[in-house]
Amino acid sequence: MDISTVNSLSYEDFVDTFGNVVERSPLIVAAIWPYRPFANLSDLEARISELIDSLPESGKEGILRCHPDLAGRDLQRGTLTRESQEEQSQAGMASLNPEETTRMYRLNTEYKRRFGFPFIICAKMNNKAAILRQLTERSGNSQTKERAHAIDEVKKICNLRLRNVVLPDIQNKL
Amino acid sequence: MDISTVNSLSYEDFVDTFGNVVERSPLIVAAIWPYRPFANLSDLEARISELIDSLPESGKEGILRCHPDLAGRDLQRGTLTRESQEEQSQAGMASLNPEETTRMYRLNTEYKRRFGFPFIICAKMNNKAAILRQLTERSGNSQTKERAHAIDEVKKICNLRLRNVVLPDIQNKL
Repeated sequence: MDISTVNSLSYEDFVDTFGNVVERSPLIVAAIWPYRPFANLSDLEARISELIDSLPESGKEGILRCHPDLAGRDLQRGTLTRESQEEQSQAGMASLNPEETTRMYRLNTEYKRRFGFPFIICAKMNNKAAILRQLTERSGNSQTKERAHAIDEVKKICNLRLRNVVLPDIQNKL
Repeated sequence: MDISTVNSLSYEDFVDTFGNVVERSPLIVAAIWPYRPFANLSDLEARISELIDSLPESGKEGILRCHPDLAGRDLQRGTLTRESQEEQSQAGMASLNPEETTRMYRLNTEYKRRFGFPFIICAKMNNKAAILRQLTERSGNSQTKERAHAIDEVKKICNLRLRNVVLPDIQNKL
């Protein structure tokens, strides 16, 4: 989709198209719809990022809690969103061996007990080993630092999801 | 569910249980989970209300745009959330005659063109005649006044949805 098509969408179609670029949080993109026309993909990304930054810290944590665990119950039950399913599979989360599954479950549980939200990482930018390493390392962060880190990952995931739908800037002409 | 059961829920179960008390906006309840223990239903309602009030105006409009039209395309397609389906049916929106359907479509379209979000009213507190009257009257409001009115309706809907799940205060003991 080119940016002029994006700019022509009704809010209903805009939310239908981009509602899950921030996992299970359609209100984020619904909030930025009035900022059309977007100059290009980067402009659209920037507006989403600004909206997230404008939320109270509790609201940011709310976004985090709308994310599934990596290799967790939603993957096992088949209830991941389409986007999460694809990202977790690509990062090898759908094909862990029993030992890795147990380790991931234990680390996720410890992380959630500590922070009160799930471990979030842009799975498409990481492989299994990197994910396990970061899950261990980031568990040592303070609440404030880890919340900020997790929100940065949300934005990376969002940007890749947007790039699956909108043409890159160089191919867009207003 | 009594309030002590509510207070014992993991954030995953809390979001599963209350994720749609604000239509398609699970991040709202996900954000207030850390405020447990809630003293009672009123306390839970107040926390949700405060969180909504703490959002930037664009975020509040984002919530509004996550709502379906009354007697609109989601009702016709059968893609309403369970809660909205029940509320709209109870208010007679699922059994409009062709003339009423056309009138509602026209009024909804005009309202959305003016405000950039859908007309929202607590359907359970209104009947068909009252809904049509308010849709006409509120279309004359300023953007600021109407946004505030619509958010008040969101809170009324939220409170009724909460009351479907949580025991009233008098039956709750901490």
